[in-house]
Amino acid sequence: MTRTHVIGVDFGSDSCRCVIADTATGEELASAVSAFPRWAAGLYCDPTQRIFRQHPQDHLDALTQVVRAALSQVSPEVRASVRGLSIATTGSTSVPVDEAGCPLALRPAFADNPNAMFLMWKDHSATLEAEQITDAARTWGGIDYTAHIGGVYSAEWYWANLLWVFRHDAQVREATASWVEHCDWLPAELTGTTAPGRMRRSRCAAGHKAMWNEGHGGLPSQAFLSHIDPLLDGIRDRLYEETWTAETPIGALTPAWADRLGLPGDVVVGVGAFDAHMGAVGAGIRHHTLVKIMGTSTCDIVLAPTDEIADRVVEGICGQVDGSVMAGAIGLEAGQSAVGDAFAWFARVLEWPLPEGSNREALRAELLPRLERAAALEPPGAHGVAALDWLNGRRTPYADQTLHGALFGLSLGSSAPQLYRALVEATAFGAKAIVDRFTESGVRINEVLAIGGVARKSALLMQIQADVFDQRIRVAKSDQAVALGAAMCAAVACGIHADIPAAQRAMACGFDLVYEPRPAEAEVYRALFRRYVEMGALVEGMKKEKAIHDAA
Amino acid sequence: MTRTHVIGVDFGSDSCRCVIADTATGEELASAVSAFPRWAAGLYCDPTQRIFRQHPQDHLDALTQVVRAALSQVSPEVRASVRGLSIATTGSTSVPVDEAGCPLALRPAFADNPNAMFLMWKDHSATLEAEQITDAARTWGGIDYTAHIGGVYSAEWYWANLLWVFRHDAQVREATASWVEHCDWLPAELTGTTAPGRMRRSRCAAGHKAMWNEGHGGLPSQAFLSHIDPLLDGIRDRLYEETWTAETPIGALTPAWADRLGLPGDVVVGVGAFDAHMGAVGAGIRHHTLVKIMGTSTCDIVLAPTDEIADRVVEGICGQVDGSVMAGAIGLEAGQSAVGDAFAWFARVLEWPLPEGSNREALRAELLPRLERAAALEPPGAHGVAALDWLNGRRTPYADQTLHGALFGLSLGSSAPQLYRALVEATAFGAKAIVDRFTESGVRINEVLAIGGVARKSALLMQIQADVFDQRIRVAKSDQAVALGAAMCAAVACGIHADIPAAQRAMACGFDLVYEPRPAEAEVYRALFRRYVEMGALVEGMKKEKAIHDAA
Repeated sequence: MTRTHVIGVDFGSDSCRCVIADTATGEELASAVSAFPRWAAGLYCDPTQRIFRQHPQDHLDALTQVVRAALSQVSPEVRASVRGLSIATTGSTSVPVDEAGCPLALRPAFADNPNAMFLMWKDHSATLEAEQITDAARTWGGIDYTAHIGGVYSAEWYWANLLWVFRHDAQVREATASWVEHCDWLPAELTGTTAPGRMRRSRCAAGHKAMWNEGHGGLPSQAFLSHIDPLLDGIRDRLYEETWTAETPIGALTPAWADRLGLPGDVVVGVGAFDAHMGAVGAGIRHHTLVKIMGTSTCDIVLAPTDEIADRVVEGICGQVDGSVMAGAIGLEAGQSAVGDAFAWFARVLEWPLPEGSNREALRAELLPRLERAAALEPPGAHGVAALDWLNGRRTPYADQTLHGALFGLSLGSSAPQLYRALVEATAFGAKAIVDRFTESGVRINEVLAIGGVARKSALLMQIQADVFDQRIRVAKSDQAVALGAAMCAAVACGIHADIPAAQRAMACGFDLVYEPRPAEAEVYRALFRRYVEMGALVEGMKKEKAIHDAA
Repeated sequence: MTRTHVIGVDFGSDSCRCVIADTATGEELASAVSAFPRWAAGLYCDPTQRIFRQHPQDHLDALTQVVRAALSQVSPEVRASVRGLSIATTGSTSVPVDEAGCPLALRPAFADNPNAMFLMWKDHSATLEAEQITDAARTWGGIDYTAHIGGVYSAEWYWANLLWVFRHDAQVREATASWVEHCDWLPAELTGTTAPGRMRRSRCAAGHKAMWNEGHGGLPSQAFLSHIDPLLDGIRDRLYEETWTAETPIGALTPAWADRLGLPGDVVVGVGAFDAHMGAVGAGIRHHTLVKIMGTSTCDIVLAPTDEIADRVVEGICGQVDGSVMAGAIGLEAGQSAVGDAFAWFARVLEWPLPEGSNREALRAELLPRLERAAALEPPGAHGVAALDWLNGRRTPYADQTLHGALFGLSLGSSAPQLYRALVEATAFGAKAIVDRFTESGVRINEVLAIGGVARKSALLMQIQADVFDQRIRVAKSDQAVALGAAMCAAVACGIHADIPAAQRAMACGFDLVYEPRPAEAEVYRALFRRYVEMGALVEGMKKEKAIHDAA
């Protein structure tokens, strides 16, 4: 039997990586990574204003590099046996395009205009616009278009970004024929289907970020959009009606792209999706699985049979979209706003007294591992020190970006490792609150899987999380689980596997880290989790907190 | 006119210091300090169990050394013109004595028995005994003997220490003829009046620590004491009925002590008192003055006319005693459990990553001043970071040693200087809560004075405190304010000044640091103080916090 291969591509925030995987075994034959050169140079961004733009040329260049680099590691036979390619991207990361579906920044007139580039997911320009969209959804007499996305529209998302650019850049607005997610544009670009009406929009992106829902007729109505701002008049006709799941083939590579990438001309490109969702596929998600994608923040994906959820809306999560992970199932998304970021924050605080000098870098690199080792020696409960993990606000349950982190139970004997352990425990409690949100809403969770840097690096967090959940947690062996998930999707899109579960069965990377709950610790953490919930409720109850915080 | 001089002695926790002061001007002609050698070697202590005992020989040796060292710095004329000597000590720091009034540890049979030595104020052996005394006061049908000491008897105090030793050491119990405070014993020792019936007990010590109150007939009744424990049967007759204020002369030095110290034989020794109270005298306390004695913790002393307070009990403070500072006025005591200690705690947390090595000590010494400079550049409110200052429990208002510190409003941008500033601001808010407790109880505070290491070192805390109080705070120029206060008391005891106010007028050291409130900051802090109170109430409201903390 001839072996066939697929390519999974994972566009992260800072770099693009790809794997070449065997469709029969999932074996990763090659992988490569490429940073975005303009982004790495800090171009088009202003972190103090939380403006983050990415040039589409960065994406094209990085994609070309990683695919060619990976192909250079395999034999001509393998290169010739590549059958499919799928792409995962960050999101909502969207861009204005012209009538040909070309991002405006790729046209000479807009080449250096940040408003003609991708507005990264972490761009927070559109805070006002997001609030206005949320308000409009609440005051609007008709359908609540935010029902399936947690009730609050985010500054990070599609419509807020579109509206912000329309308001702030008339030139770009005039030139905008449509508005496109990163995971929609690249597959279309590779297959020559960028033109309006031909582009296959991702169900995952549309459902989670653009308020697209089959139940209410696709995108929000033009009347609702115009109700937000008359600048949106007529926009709906320039967008899309239909969306597709990641199993869907778009078509073959264009000859130009096949040549450019060094791939056979018949390689099929699949519909794109967000990294967390394809990562969940790569980890082995199935019905009633929670996959935690753990990095600076977490994205938590749960899969449930469509008929089991039916019309039920799970309150307080980030969204629920039929087909966002795979066809025939609801992908439910939740998350924590600061996980790796919270640990890095504490290390930065501790770094403050370090003397400037040659070994500062070395100390810094060692600091988190040292803290982790020392915190592991502390008992559950960290001698009474406790934390709230909302250092970057709270994403789930019930998103509230105005909340803050806290440390309680401090005594003169409280040590740096105890404070760190409290942050780790709070992170596990925050994760448990998400699990509870699902289970209280009738969404069963039978198994917990994890992928991502923090899942592989922090044994302390993972063990505590298993204890707090009182449930086994397995960590996917591949540190390229997102790209592997994209490869699985590609293997379905190009017809080698019948569906994603079949691709997962064949191509699973397995788990090399397994954390079993320890009964004694689980018992202690049950009590400590109640305290976490109680502390959180108290802090939320401080009605004045926000106002005084803002005034200060 | 011949100049006359007095000696003020200040027994701290770790060392003894003295000043020789001019009775007409307060000029400090000489000073000396001497550490306690056995204490410095860690003898008779077990910090892990919070057992802290001090050998009486340490006190005798240190006293001799400091007086001789100070005298060696002045002319024979000055030495000959010393008229009085008074002593301030820590408290409650008490010891069992024999029939001659000699601390048992000075007798060969008990020379190495820690239970025959002084139980330092910070010795916490007697936690159980303190709880039982508090319970007894509440369940006892008669007089509430704790009414004037805040309603809660402390493990640090006289009766708890006595009872603990009686329970744990039958040999010491059998040999105990009476029980004596440090500030009672040393003046008696110097004047040969240690014998029962001759020793002049300090009103300050008796009133604040031994539940002595003229209104209820002196010490608690024998019936009450026996109600606590039959081991106390008959104890009251072996103690005292009368107490004296610090203006009272005891008598002249014994010839042996005059010779040993190198002083004239007619030097009059005054009745002793606690360091905070004599420090308040040294700072210039008068009616409606708050004097803050600021070190690792604070002791806050307010003076009010006796007839103004009358029968009123100020709730939630540490105690109120007629004559504890000076005759004819009520000395009210309050305090914060961790001030310098809280700042040192934060520095210790930040020190954690510092590499072992030669410059670690240098970094440590620089850390608090660096933090203070950096925190001073942050705005009031520390960009939303806020703290509760209860890292060693709360002393006032409403003592509760089970409370803990907290940090709120943490974000990924919160820096070490912001956290430090939040701790400093919380310390000022804690101080404001004490002021409010007094003023809400009808005790006016017209001026605020401060002494002690933290008052002289932390300009940041002092300025913020002035802003939070919206009131001027002046810091006494002398860094020996306690010894100077003892010298003022000595000048009254030996008849040179008619009373303490007269001695203060003549011998005042003045103020060299003055912090004026800044209106804009005061306005901001009004709102932030409300948040502090609100946060504190929430944390106190966490009824389960204690139990779970203990279980953890």
